[in-house]
Amino acid sequence: MNQFDTPNMSDPFINKNKIIPSCTGKLSGLSFAIKDNIDVANEITGYGSPGWINTHSKPVVNAICLEQLLNSGANFQGKTKSDELAYSLIGVNSFYGTPLNPKAPDRVPGGSSSGSASAVASELVDFAIGTDTGGSVRVPASNCGVWGYRPSYGAISVAGVLALAPSFDTVGIIAQTGENLEKVMQVLLAENDKGSNDFLSVCFIDDVFQMSDRQILDKITPGLNKISAFSKVQTIRLAEITDPHINCNWLFEQLGFLLSTEIWNTFGAWIKNEKPKLSPGVEYNLRSYAKSANRKDIQTSLSAKKAFQNKINNFLCEGKILCFPTTVDLAPRLDELTPDFLAGDYIPRAMGVNAISSLSRAPQITIPVAEANGVPIGLSFVAGYGQDMMLINFCNQLYSKCF
Amino acid sequence: MNQFDTPNMSDPFINKNKIIPSCTGKLSGLSFAIKDNIDVANEITGYGSPGWINTHSKPVVNAICLEQLLNSGANFQGKTKSDELAYSLIGVNSFYGTPLNPKAPDRVPGGSSSGSASAVASELVDFAIGTDTGGSVRVPASNCGVWGYRPSYGAISVAGVLALAPSFDTVGIIAQTGENLEKVMQVLLAENDKGSNDFLSVCFIDDVFQMSDRQILDKITPGLNKISAFSKVQTIRLAEITDPHINCNWLFEQLGFLLSTEIWNTFGAWIKNEKPKLSPGVEYNLRSYAKSANRKDIQTSLSAKKAFQNKINNFLCEGKILCFPTTVDLAPRLDELTPDFLAGDYIPRAMGVNAISSLSRAPQITIPVAEANGVPIGLSFVAGYGQDMMLINFCNQLYSKCF
Repeated sequence: MNQFDTPNMSDPFINKNKIIPSCTGKLSGLSFAIKDNIDVANEITGYGSPGWINTHSKPVVNAICLEQLLNSGANFQGKTKSDELAYSLIGVNSFYGTPLNPKAPDRVPGGSSSGSASAVASELVDFAIGTDTGGSVRVPASNCGVWGYRPSYGAISVAGVLALAPSFDTVGIIAQTGENLEKVMQVLLAENDKGSNDFLSVCFIDDVFQMSDRQILDKITPGLNKISAFSKVQTIRLAEITDPHINCNWLFEQLGFLLSTEIWNTFGAWIKNEKPKLSPGVEYNLRSYAKSANRKDIQTSLSAKKAFQNKINNFLCEGKILCFPTTVDLAPRLDELTPDFLAGDYIPRAMGVNAISSLSRAPQITIPVAEANGVPIGLSFVAGYGQDMMLINFCNQLYSKCF
Repeated sequence: MNQFDTPNMSDPFINKNKIIPSCTGKLSGLSFAIKDNIDVANEITGYGSPGWINTHSKPVVNAICLEQLLNSGANFQGKTKSDELAYSLIGVNSFYGTPLNPKAPDRVPGGSSSGSASAVASELVDFAIGTDTGGSVRVPASNCGVWGYRPSYGAISVAGVLALAPSFDTVGIIAQTGENLEKVMQVLLAENDKGSNDFLSVCFIDDVFQMSDRQILDKITPGLNKISAFSKVQTIRLAEITDPHINCNWLFEQLGFLLSTEIWNTFGAWIKNEKPKLSPGVEYNLRSYAKSANRKDIQTSLSAKKAFQNKINNFLCEGKILCFPTTVDLAPRLDELTPDFLAGDYIPRAMGVNAISSLSRAPQITIPVAEANGVPIGLSFVAGYGQDMMLINFCNQLYSKCF
């Protein structure tokens, strides 16, 4: 099977070209897949886009993150589907199909690391690699009921990974269990030691809880009560720990604008010169939205972003951990994806919550903690910049006690 | 004049296509140039390489860092020469010529941000932007007798900047004065506040002083003595603050290997498919050296790098500042650049010292502090990760008292 030939539109894989590792190591016995925007030598990296494939050639070597996993003995099972150009949180791809959300088959898997989340939730692999710019690992992991991790910005090499918005692009991990996530984090972060136990308290972000769907709140409340028994807790508002004007809508606007500006650096010349085949939705997003971003506002927005980043990380520097629902709405049903729905508030609400980590550069882990009528619900934890191993250590201890 | 037409081989500029800023701001009244690997809308970004120009098209928008400077009122004067593919510390380009080192006209300017350093030292602009992966801002700034800054990794956007080795690539600044450097840092880091005064002590790295040319040591000793009067000082060895096996030669080997692996991710497919026109030296470096790096060793080397990064930043976290000569040899004479010289120990010695920041991701500033028979000598200061504004504040105070 090659990447142009996908008989089953709900299959999470774009191809199943395996690589057997040439050595044993920390990840021996674990199988994995990687998203279709990460280089495998001698295969065109497809980016979920026929227009991309038609205008690009085969890389000659594997991405650094893939080499790290093969160097550590993991078994590579192939490449997973991505939303077109990794530019969506939905998980639908009109060219290659929508990977199955095995826990809720009538719902979207979430994107853009849709195939990676689907493959892990379907137990086809132990873990999968995705990329996360504005939520593309966290949202599909939450929707599919598995663990998902966005690292501290810059902590995992992006060499051999296609760029989207370089100041926000990260390589993330989706895994069936917290134990396996911890092992893979150790490898990709190249950390030899276990994370510290230096966590102090859990801070519930009231803004996000207030925005959340009633069904989500109802189902996670028992777990939140157990967290209060496990750890010191407090409830905070974003405005209180950063600046008075800051809320999730403001975060969405800043992140949306800054992503647009960098995405046009990435794709502008390609779109203009190659006139690639794009789906109507992505064509609109790129040509109308990204192209028209007012670049005279870049410095103002970057200053606002940096102030937010500094304040969040100062607040978290002594071992505090933020906690909030990963998404404030359940995964949309496949039959409700109308143009009106996609132009509505689902994306702004999802992006606003994901912007907490994307703008602050802090690491985030989403844990599957509950279901509402079978639809998975993820709960997220964010630690200070660079505290990734402490965060997974905390999450594993908390999960074993509370869920 | 266009970028293919460079009548004067020692001119630092590749073109002089100016942009007048449309607003006033923090940088009003200051003129600047940017290196030939940073996008200006509607000009092919040349990368110091005719082979690159022939196979790439014009970007449609400016790099984010250029927008930030224009948003802040600075006057853009054009693009400066780069070493071919930004892959050298020497400053010679066989296609476009070698920018003048105005302080030492018989010596190389250093590279790869050769034109940026030359333009600033020649007082053609107040500051210039370069890129620094393994020393490409710090070395030419030091050779040309001006200020140079490599930021904390990831602190300045690389959107619209050509990649070399993404885990190490940074956008840096070269300036005539520390005051101007501080202003430009505020803009590119998007920091509204002045740096703190929380510096504790200066730690001389004995390893680097021991390696340094006698003429360099003789000329900087009076300055070092003044530093001892300005600040608490101590002398340390890298092995003592990190691990017993670590010295500058080890740092050179790790950095050289990791750069090679990522550079082959960046250029491998292009070289294979396009067979671009390259100079013999770069052709050799890419085809023989980068291509042959043993990728089975990536995980081992990344683990060693991460341990070094953690130890350096833990040591620096309380306001300690490292100090050492920026280069351990004077800028080479133009007439000594034989193949034997280039295959000798000049590059390993320079890269080993520059690897302290490239591997640890900590910010570094080089200050022009002395001359040996007219040849400039730079002294470097390194603060902990993210402490960039504290570092420039420290450097400006120290410079006014000691030099």
